Amino acid sequence: MPKVSEDHLAARRRQILDGARRCFAEYGYDGATVRLLEDATGLSRGAIFHHFKDKDGLFLALAQEDARRMADVAANEGLVQVMRDMLSSPDQFDWLGTRLEITRRLRTDPEFAKAWMQHSAELTEATVGRLERQREAGRLRDDVPTEVVLGYLDLVLDGLVARLASGHTEQDLVAVLDLVEESVRRRD
Amino acid sequence: MPKVSEDHLAARRRQILDGARRCFAEYGYDGATVRLLEDATGLSRGAIFHHFKDKDGLFLALAQEDARRMADVAANEGLVQVMRDMLSSPDQFDWLGTRLEITRRLRTDPEFAKAWMQHSAELTEATVGRLERQREAGRLRDDVPTEVVLGYLDLVLDGLVARLASGHTEQDLVAVLDLVEESVRRRD
Repeated sequence: MPKVSEDHLAARRRQILDGARRCFAEYGYDGATVRLLEDATGLSRGAIFHHFKDKDGLFLALAQEDARRMADVAANEGLVQVMRDMLSSPDQFDWLGTRLEITRRLRTDPEFAKAWMQHSAELTEATVGRLERQREAGRLRDDVPTEVVLGYLDLVLDGLVARLASGHTEQDLVAVLDLVEESVRRRD
Repeated sequence: MPKVSEDHLAARRRQILDGARRCFAEYGYDGATVRLLEDATGLSRGAIFHHFKDKDGLFLALAQEDARRMADVAANEGLVQVMRDMLSSPDQFDWLGTRLEITRRLRTDPEFAKAWMQHSAELTEATVGRLERQREAGRLRDDVPTEVVLGYLDLVLDGLVARLASGHTEQDLVAVLDLVEESVRRRD
């Protein structure tokens, strides 16, 4: 396939993902009809579903983009920094609500849950790698297993997603994240 | 009003709330149509909406029941115990997903958000009261303001709701809650 065509496909894919993200953010998962996705992306349903199998595929591709971006930060600066970044970029909040809407399906739709877990595995791996390096460097508390620290940080991240999605961020979440970070750090 | 009639009304209200809780758990907020609510409660729409203004009213009454029950535990044993109770009563999990589905509305529907916040205020008050008594008794760490501890516990609770609703509880959440409890305790 000639280079120009690959570029074109990538740009098209980008156009669809950006439009879909806005559309999900505005109308929610169920509310984002194919018609609204067409409007938001500026493309026909034929073009959209040439690139993505269906609405689930589009949604999971967006979730994977998030997971990749978060994994990059988590690998180098840790999961708490991922949360700090979320707090400081409110333009991402709208989309987070859509992630909550699909929570039910994680429990009721095994195939969807499997696809979702595959996409979030990258973030988990990045976080575990960072935690292990921190532990080796003596910066992580050594009285709690790594998997418990991971479970703890994951739980706080889930809480932050819910909080940001609800728009109730008036509490001092920066200080809360300081507490979270300190609670897994080694004490001298 | 004679006593028997009051009892009857209370029983009817109970019947509606129990049925609606099951119905929301099974079909989600949007999926729980008036027809399905009739089936689940065994009552007509006339009877249901004699007791509750509309579906929102029904939903908020259920959320208030949760908040009251949690506030009782939070006042006496703290918010971490509320979370431990949630972990040990999986029959409540289905309903929790519905709470996530309405997150979007907390951001986009000010009237609904106001009603929701009123109902959760009881839990916040109970938690703050308990934290202040713990602080006076020297059991709470004294280097972090009470509101930050509250914000921290709230965030973890939100995370737990999301986790339970998604059914992904395979991580050792009991040990995670131990870490949470220990991180707000005074260190000697």
